[in-house]
Amino acid sequence: MFAKCTHHLNSSFIRDILAVTQQPGIISFAGGLPDPTLFPKAELAKAARGIHNQYGGDLYQYSETAGIPDFRQWIADHYDTPGSKEEIIITTGSQQGLDLTTRCLINPGDKIIVEAPSYLGALQVFTANQASLSAIPIDDEGPDLDALEHYLEQERISCFYTVPDFQNPKGTSYLLQRRKALVALAERYDFWIMEDAPYRELRYRGETLPSLQSLSPERVIRFGSFSKIIAPALRLGWISAPQPVIKIVEKMKQCADLHSSGYDQHLVLEFLRQGSLPAHLEQLKQVYGERLKIMFNTLSSQLPETVKLSKPDGGMFIWTELSETADTMKLFRKAIKQGVAFVPGEAFHIDGGSKNCLRFNFSNSDSEQIQQGIKRLTALIINESE
Amino acid sequence: MFAKCTHHLNSSFIRDILAVTQQPGIISFAGGLPDPTLFPKAELAKAARGIHNQYGGDLYQYSETAGIPDFRQWIADHYDTPGSKEEIIITTGSQQGLDLTTRCLINPGDKIIVEAPSYLGALQVFTANQASLSAIPIDDEGPDLDALEHYLEQERISCFYTVPDFQNPKGTSYLLQRRKALVALAERYDFWIMEDAPYRELRYRGETLPSLQSLSPERVIRFGSFSKIIAPALRLGWISAPQPVIKIVEKMKQCADLHSSGYDQHLVLEFLRQGSLPAHLEQLKQVYGERLKIMFNTLSSQLPETVKLSKPDGGMFIWTELSETADTMKLFRKAIKQGVAFVPGEAFHIDGGSKNCLRFNFSNSDSEQIQQGIKRLTALIINESE
Repeated sequence: MFAKCTHHLNSSFIRDILAVTQQPGIISFAGGLPDPTLFPKAELAKAARGIHNQYGGDLYQYSETAGIPDFRQWIADHYDTPGSKEEIIITTGSQQGLDLTTRCLINPGDKIIVEAPSYLGALQVFTANQASLSAIPIDDEGPDLDALEHYLEQERISCFYTVPDFQNPKGTSYLLQRRKALVALAERYDFWIMEDAPYRELRYRGETLPSLQSLSPERVIRFGSFSKIIAPALRLGWISAPQPVIKIVEKMKQCADLHSSGYDQHLVLEFLRQGSLPAHLEQLKQVYGERLKIMFNTLSSQLPETVKLSKPDGGMFIWTELSETADTMKLFRKAIKQGVAFVPGEAFHIDGGSKNCLRFNFSNSDSEQIQQGIKRLTALIINESE
Repeated sequence: MFAKCTHHLNSSFIRDILAVTQQPGIISFAGGLPDPTLFPKAELAKAARGIHNQYGGDLYQYSETAGIPDFRQWIADHYDTPGSKEEIIITTGSQQGLDLTTRCLINPGDKIIVEAPSYLGALQVFTANQASLSAIPIDDEGPDLDALEHYLEQERISCFYTVPDFQNPKGTSYLLQRRKALVALAERYDFWIMEDAPYRELRYRGETLPSLQSLSPERVIRFGSFSKIIAPALRLGWISAPQPVIKIVEKMKQCADLHSSGYDQHLVLEFLRQGSLPAHLEQLKQVYGERLKIMFNTLSSQLPETVKLSKPDGGMFIWTELSETADTMKLFRKAIKQGVAFVPGEAFHIDGGSKNCLRFNFSNSDSEQIQQGIKRLTALIINESE
């Protein structure tokens, strides 16, 4: 009845369980959600009044497929991207960036390498577009480049997909040396790097590392997002890439939705022009950074010493590896009954793996919830391992 | 360098010439744009204040892929669609509805029948998704059903795509009898009808005819839009279809952009709940209806008698057929120099046709511009035919 590609359409485990985890009384470390109490409501309302007063009917008219020119210019001016606004296109969230780019780059059967574990929404896009997926393990310092090179010696790949800053789900970042070695491989073996960077601005300690794109502008397609630093409901992201890529993605976007909400683009641009981002970002970093500390300390003080925790410097997630025989899918079902939720590790793999791991989100729970929730969970985990 | 499907990506002639036609001094009958001076700015600003006061941070949070439930419910309650909100999904403009549905229904090479002439944006979607396209002529009363049946006797098709109300580009509507005969064919020959209905609410005279969907709910996928009756910048449309179609489209949409702007959905829902649509729609109908009259009368009084005009009862377009030897692409280039623009007929065909025809938009020019623009054009057309 439906097209062949729909056989590969998997609904996201996370989206499916969101309904369950949003029941009252549940402490949810599951979704990758920003804390809604921190959204800059007043500043966005001010921006809404601002654009209402500044613009006539044009605010509500059709606009350019690539995005409002001044908005693209703002991104070109304020992010460490190469090139001008001609190398930037606005997308309906960075999720659309991934889908449009994949549609433009990948024929069915073309090979994409992903991280193991990897961002679920990207895996969905790649499988829906019938890419052939393989995974390379990542450790706390980046991808296993020996494994990658071994693969490249045997197979031609189209793309390597990565979240090098505060990875989803592990929370860790690539070291500079691994970044350099990865782009060197891309140049030697002629493939694209898709650099997904939605958490890059959410660094709570340490220094910002060069983007992969800055190390090899001709090889890297970078995806940015306003969802994590302003508001996900507005669905605004962007792609920065060499102009031929932007041009073809623009044509695909014309088919896909003509353009992203012009009203929301003007709203965010006005928020940015009013200078509201720096203070807001500072607040996010302070609150989320504190929550990361509390969660990390609570987990490491309460869980058995054999449990391994990732040590993120930013982002929204901590990755936890239980004893080898643990089954976090089973644990998930028990945890829900105890009023606490997380995402089991295997959700982040194309074909199993990390069955003894779990992802904790710390951005959307306050310190009391974090302590309460971890307490409930620790009891279950210790019970499990006995 | 790019995927095979990108070889079929054509940029829209209309979008490409928009830049030219928006130069100062040009009277443009080209784009299918609503008049921006008529957008309900004050009511939308009121709705923006309303949602700011009603909602907390949830207004800016991630939300359901299928759309805000109350918004889907409003559509289910107020449109002549079958079923409940479960048979409705919100899309980023009806353009996204077309693309998502095509991705879900069509394998490369599957056959879609379109109208000749047809809506450009749909042709782009179908070719980008590698459908095999054939076209059936339409006259002032609907599609040539003999030609369609003759085709169906020989070939299995997946879909028939149509704009039955105030068609783009012809402006005409299907008679009731043709509607009934078309859905009977869909039932007999087992194919989907994609009923694209963005202009359906813009009727200036005569009585509303039953939608194709109401005649055969199991065979018809209907696309609705708020772009023409509220504001295109907000990019909000919807699909109404049997639940299995909605479910699979929802999965595809999760890949494509997670969800459409939750803020814009709340904004439009609040506008609708405040009861602002009926009076606004009344105003649009009055103004656009008057412009249709003026354009039709000006064209028919000034152009030679041999020129044929379509007689729309609504929508945004009049279709004009010049003498058989006329070349409207040549005429277009001359017209631009005289400060007037339209869309040449061949832009609406998959492989030529209507080379002596042109589409006039009347919604985005006032009566003086209409009279001025037609005058400039008439001189060129009469010159041409001498």
